[in-house]
Amino acid sequence: MAMRLSPIARAALLANLVAPGLLAADKPNVVVIFCDDLGYGDLGCFGHPTIATPSLDRMAREGQKWMSFYSAAPVCTPSRAGLMTGRYPIRSGMCSNKRGVLFPDSGGGLPASEVTIAELLKEQDYATCCIGKWHLGHQKQFLPMRHGFDEWFGIPYSNDMHVKRRGDPAVPLMRGDEVVEQPANQNTLTKRYTEEAVAFIDRNKEKPFFLYFAHTFPHIPLFASTDFRGKSRRGLYGDVVEELDWSVGRVLDKLRQEKIDKKTLVVFTSDNGPWLVMRLRGGSAGLLRDGKGTTWEGGMREPTIFWWPGRIEAGSTESGMGSTLDLLPTIASLCGALTPKDRQLDGHDLSATLFGDAPSPRDTMFFYRGTRLHAVRHGQWKAHFWTRGWRQRKLNQHETPLLFHLDLDPSESWNVAAKQKKNVATLTALAEAHSKTVQPVVNQLEVQLEKR
Amino acid sequence: MAMRLSPIARAALLANLVAPGLLAADKPNVVVIFCDDLGYGDLGCFGHPTIATPSLDRMAREGQKWMSFYSAAPVCTPSRAGLMTGRYPIRSGMCSNKRGVLFPDSGGGLPASEVTIAELLKEQDYATCCIGKWHLGHQKQFLPMRHGFDEWFGIPYSNDMHVKRRGDPAVPLMRGDEVVEQPANQNTLTKRYTEEAVAFIDRNKEKPFFLYFAHTFPHIPLFASTDFRGKSRRGLYGDVVEELDWSVGRVLDKLRQEKIDKKTLVVFTSDNGPWLVMRLRGGSAGLLRDGKGTTWEGGMREPTIFWWPGRIEAGSTESGMGSTLDLLPTIASLCGALTPKDRQLDGHDLSATLFGDAPSPRDTMFFYRGTRLHAVRHGQWKAHFWTRGWRQRKLNQHETPLLFHLDLDPSESWNVAAKQKKNVATLTALAEAHSKTVQPVVNQLEVQLEKR
Repeated sequence: MAMRLSPIARAALLANLVAPGLLAADKPNVVVIFCDDLGYGDLGCFGHPTIATPSLDRMAREGQKWMSFYSAAPVCTPSRAGLMTGRYPIRSGMCSNKRGVLFPDSGGGLPASEVTIAELLKEQDYATCCIGKWHLGHQKQFLPMRHGFDEWFGIPYSNDMHVKRRGDPAVPLMRGDEVVEQPANQNTLTKRYTEEAVAFIDRNKEKPFFLYFAHTFPHIPLFASTDFRGKSRRGLYGDVVEELDWSVGRVLDKLRQEKIDKKTLVVFTSDNGPWLVMRLRGGSAGLLRDGKGTTWEGGMREPTIFWWPGRIEAGSTESGMGSTLDLLPTIASLCGALTPKDRQLDGHDLSATLFGDAPSPRDTMFFYRGTRLHAVRHGQWKAHFWTRGWRQRKLNQHETPLLFHLDLDPSESWNVAAKQKKNVATLTALAEAHSKTVQPVVNQLEVQLEKR
Repeated sequence: MAMRLSPIARAALLANLVAPGLLAADKPNVVVIFCDDLGYGDLGCFGHPTIATPSLDRMAREGQKWMSFYSAAPVCTPSRAGLMTGRYPIRSGMCSNKRGVLFPDSGGGLPASEVTIAELLKEQDYATCCIGKWHLGHQKQFLPMRHGFDEWFGIPYSNDMHVKRRGDPAVPLMRGDEVVEQPANQNTLTKRYTEEAVAFIDRNKEKPFFLYFAHTFPHIPLFASTDFRGKSRRGLYGDVVEELDWSVGRVLDKLRQEKIDKKTLVVFTSDNGPWLVMRLRGGSAGLLRDGKGTTWEGGMREPTIFWWPGRIEAGSTESGMGSTLDLLPTIASLCGALTPKDRQLDGHDLSATLFGDAPSPRDTMFFYRGTRLHAVRHGQWKAHFWTRGWRQRKLNQHETPLLFHLDLDPSESWNVAAKQKKNVATLTALAEAHSKTVQPVVNQLEVQLEKR
């Protein structure tokens, strides 16, 4: 086994993990398909009227829709850091109030001391592959190969990050540490990513594998291949989502063809809600309020599907809470890995909910924007201490937090704080207790390169 | 065959119809399940996060979701008149600007001269049954039995129409022309309706039948039986919708048990959008704008499912336009009935779209509020000449109509009239041409009883 763990991560693993020793044949494959800026309302199976998503609709018919599944943050970099580590991004220094995400001139990235899903699975002899957008640091020491992945093919940050006045280079397409195309031809990215994904599955069908498939789209600027351009009723945005849908279908078909569908967990979700400021070039949060960059539900609740034929009940729906923060502990538990014990994890093992009738173990979710804790949800209640909608320039602090009952009022329309003082107090106390668990760390998003 | 057609309807039928003579064995059964005030976003398969609708989700998995299916009007009485006759309610005098719907002191109703779906199917030897809310006239001459139904069990108008200061009687529950319970015990209405529906199917399983199953709920006041009360995460509203979902499951199960599912078309839809002024006691229009009583999409676009195992492609989605106005011609075509030729019909036969790949024949929809033509949709474009949202007291006339591209912008967020003058002109001309086809008739909603 070619170990590519960072020294610190390796030490953490050796010190803190005891592999429970699943036999290789019992180790399931894991595929995480992660979109960029996809809205809660953008899929047919989540109610969109004019975006045709037959593959995702079928995935939902054969799997389980999660209706209250949160990304770890409302923007790209911190959201990805949360998924990869199972920890709120504030713990790894991967969020900032000055710079929401990493930019081409950023010098920081996900610290080597963090333990990623890929690292955990490498310890369990998994083949690990990252395809698509990384955005957890593009200096060499932060690239996917330093964080547990055997292979990477994709772009290092967002596809719009080539601002001339800032001196940004054209967006590169990379394989491992090498730039293979610059500018990346974005028209064919989804198609090429998909071919890479299918080829990776083909090469590794005899052993357990982990594929983290992080699409570049529907982040703006939008591109679709000629097969999809002009095809959707929903214009270019729909074309792009329909190509993503096709891609999901190709991956699931490959698993079926190789007869490994019954030993593969596939998760589909997104990094944050729709980019509403882009109007019709952005997506729809459906019935949820607001979108990307905000801590309203539309900013962080994602259209999510879990699929594992034979293990997950076909056509089922889960209304309990989940989060991308839960993927690390869930995957670790399924794959026979133990999670690190020397640090605060924020995820829960969702297995008993996915495979049985157990209620979700997640009862609380914290909503950060940058390093500021904006809101907390506990059970059905969500309290907002700070809000800023996409139409607002100003951040609003709420001396009396806003309170919404999300089960009754998923659209966050009716603030009931005045009548629910006890619940406001409970949620405020939860937020305070949580904040005490947060330790100061280097802010990776504010580390700039000394020169360009 | 016991003919119960009104004399005028009978004459119209005899004069204008030539039955194409389907053999009885080839005549499919038809079940129309019609909810009251259900929002576009209120079902799991249309994206609601906390209302559990496993039976409707299964119906969608086995059938076809229509994503752009309109009721004939944004309130109860005119919507039902449109469904029953295949004609905009303004043609039958069943809409008004003074009284939106029929009230207990109303003397009018659906004129005997109108030809209903039930009358067409009676001519074809169908057993016909109306279960649930009628609301097309509660004077004896207007009741379901005078409009082609062999049987009726239900309430004559809305379940909230017992306003004391107006001198309304308690809401009656009727069987045929007789009041069998007053006030109707609304807690068990959905359950009893469902038992009646299953019994009707059981009695008529050997011959073709038409069941018009018009639920009383989720119109407010909300009631659910003890089996459902307190069950839903979405509170009482969710309890009520989950009981409706159970009811749908019972009906489809009965069809499967009797092995007549493959010869039965079932349609599920609603009369208008959610009653937003009722806040959390009303439903959700999902990503659509506004709700009941308005001509925004949320007022008239309904969550609609067509189901016919073996005929309709399982798990499919239709994005083309349809309307409850289309049910009469579609059902007539399937059941071997001809539609009356002596009057303007506003519906289209959707069969080729339901059973094949043909695009929907409906390319235009007119949106009335009362007798005023508020808006028109043609293809993807919708022009609003008048608007009034649920939060607004005032009716707004738009000298330059508002224009939205509904395929790109289903939420009607971005008025593009300024850049689309030609489309505005086209839609304005369509509205004017349509208005010329409307003949003056007696306004049935303004006919009051002389004394109480």
